[in-house]
Amino acid sequence: MSTNHEVSASSDHRLFKSSRRVYITGSRPDIQVPMREIVLSPTKLHNGTEVPNEPVRVYDTSGSWGDSTFHADPAQGLPEVRAGWIRERNDTTETQGRAVSPMDDGYLSEVHRVQAEKEGRRNPIKYFDRKKRTVLKAKPGARVSQLHYARQGIITPEMEYIAIRENTRLQRSRELLEMTADGPRNSLWRQHPGHSFGAAIPKEITPEFVREEVAKGRAIIPGNINHPEVEPMIIGRNFLVKINTNIGNSAVASSIDEEVEKMCWSVKWGGDTLMDLSTGKNIHQTREWILRNCPVPVGTVPIYQALEKVGGRPEALTWEIFRDTLIEQAEQGVDYFTIHAGVLLRYIPLTARRMTGIVSRGGSIMAKWCLSHHKENFLYTHWDEICEICAAYDVSFSIGDGLRPGSIADANDEAQFGELLTQGELTKRAWELGAQVMCEGPGHVPMHMIPENMEKQLKWCSEAPFYTLGPLTTDIAPGYDHITSAIGAAHIGWYGTAMLCYVTPKEHLGLPDKDDVRDGVIAYKIAAHAADLAKGHPASQYRDNALSKARFEFRWQDQFNLSLDPERAQEYHDATLPQDSAKTAHFCSMCGPQFCSMRITEDVRRYAEEQGIKEAEAVAAGMAAKAGEFIKAGGEIYLDDAK
Amino acid sequence: MSTNHEVSASSDHRLFKSSRRVYITGSRPDIQVPMREIVLSPTKLHNGTEVPNEPVRVYDTSGSWGDSTFHADPAQGLPEVRAGWIRERNDTTETQGRAVSPMDDGYLSEVHRVQAEKEGRRNPIKYFDRKKRTVLKAKPGARVSQLHYARQGIITPEMEYIAIRENTRLQRSRELLEMTADGPRNSLWRQHPGHSFGAAIPKEITPEFVREEVAKGRAIIPGNINHPEVEPMIIGRNFLVKINTNIGNSAVASSIDEEVEKMCWSVKWGGDTLMDLSTGKNIHQTREWILRNCPVPVGTVPIYQALEKVGGRPEALTWEIFRDTLIEQAEQGVDYFTIHAGVLLRYIPLTARRMTGIVSRGGSIMAKWCLSHHKENFLYTHWDEICEICAAYDVSFSIGDGLRPGSIADANDEAQFGELLTQGELTKRAWELGAQVMCEGPGHVPMHMIPENMEKQLKWCSEAPFYTLGPLTTDIAPGYDHITSAIGAAHIGWYGTAMLCYVTPKEHLGLPDKDDVRDGVIAYKIAAHAADLAKGHPASQYRDNALSKARFEFRWQDQFNLSLDPERAQEYHDATLPQDSAKTAHFCSMCGPQFCSMRITEDVRRYAEEQGIKEAEAVAAGMAAKAGEFIKAGGEIYLDDAK
Repeated sequence: MSTNHEVSASSDHRLFKSSRRVYITGSRPDIQVPMREIVLSPTKLHNGTEVPNEPVRVYDTSGSWGDSTFHADPAQGLPEVRAGWIRERNDTTETQGRAVSPMDDGYLSEVHRVQAEKEGRRNPIKYFDRKKRTVLKAKPGARVSQLHYARQGIITPEMEYIAIRENTRLQRSRELLEMTADGPRNSLWRQHPGHSFGAAIPKEITPEFVREEVAKGRAIIPGNINHPEVEPMIIGRNFLVKINTNIGNSAVASSIDEEVEKMCWSVKWGGDTLMDLSTGKNIHQTREWILRNCPVPVGTVPIYQALEKVGGRPEALTWEIFRDTLIEQAEQGVDYFTIHAGVLLRYIPLTARRMTGIVSRGGSIMAKWCLSHHKENFLYTHWDEICEICAAYDVSFSIGDGLRPGSIADANDEAQFGELLTQGELTKRAWELGAQVMCEGPGHVPMHMIPENMEKQLKWCSEAPFYTLGPLTTDIAPGYDHITSAIGAAHIGWYGTAMLCYVTPKEHLGLPDKDDVRDGVIAYKIAAHAADLAKGHPASQYRDNALSKARFEFRWQDQFNLSLDPERAQEYHDATLPQDSAKTAHFCSMCGPQFCSMRITEDVRRYAEEQGIKEAEAVAAGMAAKAGEFIKAGGEIYLDDAK
Repeated sequence: MSTNHEVSASSDHRLFKSSRRVYITGSRPDIQVPMREIVLSPTKLHNGTEVPNEPVRVYDTSGSWGDSTFHADPAQGLPEVRAGWIRERNDTTETQGRAVSPMDDGYLSEVHRVQAEKEGRRNPIKYFDRKKRTVLKAKPGARVSQLHYARQGIITPEMEYIAIRENTRLQRSRELLEMTADGPRNSLWRQHPGHSFGAAIPKEITPEFVREEVAKGRAIIPGNINHPEVEPMIIGRNFLVKINTNIGNSAVASSIDEEVEKMCWSVKWGGDTLMDLSTGKNIHQTREWILRNCPVPVGTVPIYQALEKVGGRPEALTWEIFRDTLIEQAEQGVDYFTIHAGVLLRYIPLTARRMTGIVSRGGSIMAKWCLSHHKENFLYTHWDEICEICAAYDVSFSIGDGLRPGSIADANDEAQFGELLTQGELTKRAWELGAQVMCEGPGHVPMHMIPENMEKQLKWCSEAPFYTLGPLTTDIAPGYDHITSAIGAAHIGWYGTAMLCYVTPKEHLGLPDKDDVRDGVIAYKIAAHAADLAKGHPASQYRDNALSKARFEFRWQDQFNLSLDPERAQEYHDATLPQDSAKTAHFCSMCGPQFCSMRITEDVRRYAEEQGIKEAEAVAAGMAAKAGEFIKAGGEIYLDDAK
């Protein structure tokens, strides 16, 4: 099969130089938590001696694709890390499963298949071989969600796995941890000033803390019992901020091979979850290939596929078609569903006066359906049944924000907040029925209007994790919306948003290619990490410290390897100073060999040793006190004189 | 001269498609304020009629280079827009000026010149022909700074020019202004919550308001009397947030031609000021070419050139060499000087325990000098004389932050804040002596520690404009530091920072090329604009509105043209849908022609017209009230049950 060859031929580029995947064993041997370990070179002192630097371990989303010993054959798929845990809970049964029909691959697929047959060509769809796979479902009356277990006080292997994973930094680098200058003086700012929200992250994340947060609904562990390949991860504001990436073929472009390759690419760079937004043809099969090869939770918007099943006409949608699609996808192993059940009939007219109306595709589909039938949204009226399906497979909800603003002018309006209120109502009902929930948020929001989003969401949705698309903080930079939105994402992540949906540079303009995906993922890793630092997550600053230490000591290769994108860092350095010698040189291209600011610091250290730092500190402290007095005593008098 | 040819050959790429430069006349005919006017296509209604869209005017930094009628010959330079105003104030005299010596072009230049002579080659330096130029200086006893005039109650032509320029949006597009959804509900957020800082921008910026802000020292108008080519602009937190770009050859790379070309390039994309950070050879001549062709204020770090004059050895620096360099540059027309007078001897040992020591080049030079001589920084001890020189040419200060943190671990430490305190002291003294001042700030700062920077700067530096480098909100993304820092820049801009110094993707890694400059400028235009929106500047949201309206109406070409980078927007759209027809198509590549969310909004509008919006609004208002009650009545009870 051509896919396999293509994918494995390019498997090299999935690995980072000077990195290896290591596994930490938990309380039982089948808890093997992956991390990427970056090997560093020694520090060279003036006197020529070398001091070794401990390897640095970082959170790793790449799955087996990041392991050089992996077979890298998509037709075989990933190891089923969770299979044993799911089985031993003894609350699921194997079922026959729903029969897959040609319709599942979209009306376009059917058109293409018939055409291919007529013309004597082979069916263009590639089928994943599911012979060895079974379909699981909760036993009658049983609930199989992590929320349910957490409420019973059970710490699942998934929870322990997550606790180890979130504590990445505890595995090594204690020295780097101690180097933080962020003392009690600044703890004031941990919570966003003037607000009740913010994070409350313990110094060490324990399995019991994970359980508690899940039990409260403040965090979710997306993991369908039919996606045992997923490496457990958590989404909640007292954990590392996560990022989601989107892939998906559309009627205009893309193929299955490309989508699988994009998935591998996105997890290499650090995508924590992946949404498959395929429309057009081969939807079912594209998703099957992705699920069997994806180490991170996979989300979908089931209404997209339902729409394909009815020929692309929203008004032809029915509850039965939608329900069938939910079961189809739950049986395949989709980990979370975006469902636009909050787009109520009465909110729709509120969008009429907007600058940009309804910009969410799911929101538009449901609006169109509601208007055509002049009936309440069937996702809302059938919510209990949807919850029961989700709880039976542990599919988490990502309650959609179909009325999110599509422009700065529409931010925080009645339509948006009306839906948010309903998202809160749906959250509570889903919890009652045992399903895990996160809520989607905007969109386009200027900075000063972002805090209100977080405050209302925490209140109205009872602290269920918030999952936002950016937000974009201005509309005027198409081509750079990964940046307009990374600004908003970093902000809202600090305020408490648990997961950030990435935006690529092609947003609003076209379909992202591999470079766009990489740019989008890195921009969002930056936003998430900036938020983690601001929230004070214990597993964040050690990496900044390790990189800055390498930078300061002119360990160029270490600086590259510790960065979010080692390849680009090296490429940029090569652009000015391509010689190998420059990678060990004690200068950089900005200042040239004649002069270097970092070198001078060596003199300062010698001077400080001679003069004693203490004395200087005393002087500085005295000055600061004096300045305080000066200001109190009317330091601004001069200003008045100046008028 | 080869330069001329090269530069004018490429002048085309300085103009934007569908844009033209227009001029608004002020109260006197020689006040001609430039704007870029973007011509839009009409809106097409369902019934086929076309409704015209007014052109949109945007702030334009490109100078005559953005005017298609300009000669575009660097050897002739730009028109001297301010010459008449300076002359009519009758407080300056023409002076002979300091004789230019070979040393001014750096010791490397001298080495090269001697070598060239020996080998019988032509001197490689290109000289700008200054025959028609004079050198101006304040008459004895006179003060010629905008601060001085403002304090006298004088509204200069520069101030009126700026008022018109800052009100760009008032020139047109009243309709778009009214479309903002940002009502009183959100005004709460204008000021950063919990803080005393923030902006207080009037609905319309008047010349008198400009004068007041300058008189208070809250804003500066950088404009050396020897740089009459500069188009007046203002830096202060109650105005549009400005961005600075850096260029400059170094010992390792670059030529004069390249630097002039980079300057044109940077103002095309929107750089508001430009710092020439040249080191190595041809420093004087590079600066001459830049000044005579640069429509925006030019800043330098004079200590860089002084260092070149003494062979690159910091310990060999003297007050006399430095003073000579200040006069040399003031006579050429440099508009602001970065001077690291706050790096006091007693602060230096405080950097010894840092993760990354001293990373500012100017800071390192002065630290090295202080340590070598074990004396107080001569820039500090000679501050009054420096102020007198600056006031005599109206060179503004940009008081350097030589001890800014170079890593997250070093943010907000004693060394940094010690220097900031001294910056405040220097500010007050400069004001007393009639010089305009802004203060430089960090650097590397995590988000939660940014507000403290703004608070302390406003207090200690008596509200003088703050001018920050980023700040970078994480250290782990070399290759993407335009993004790590745009996040911090947008933040601190909202809090009140007046100008943001751009960072390119090559920061920490190499010398920026043209693409890097463009990426850096656009990232910072985004940060500045996001801050303007958040601060509520009256000339900000109308552009978002115009672009979003175009996007919603599928006026693709208008969407491209209204964006910060029309060329990239179009290029990205072309990548997926290159056909001309796609630029008028009512769909985009993301959803394909079968389905489009924006189209559905048309149905919503029809529905709303039929059903009446009022009713829906009443229902929504009722729901919101009910939700408020629910929350008050214990909406979180469920959470307790769940435990």
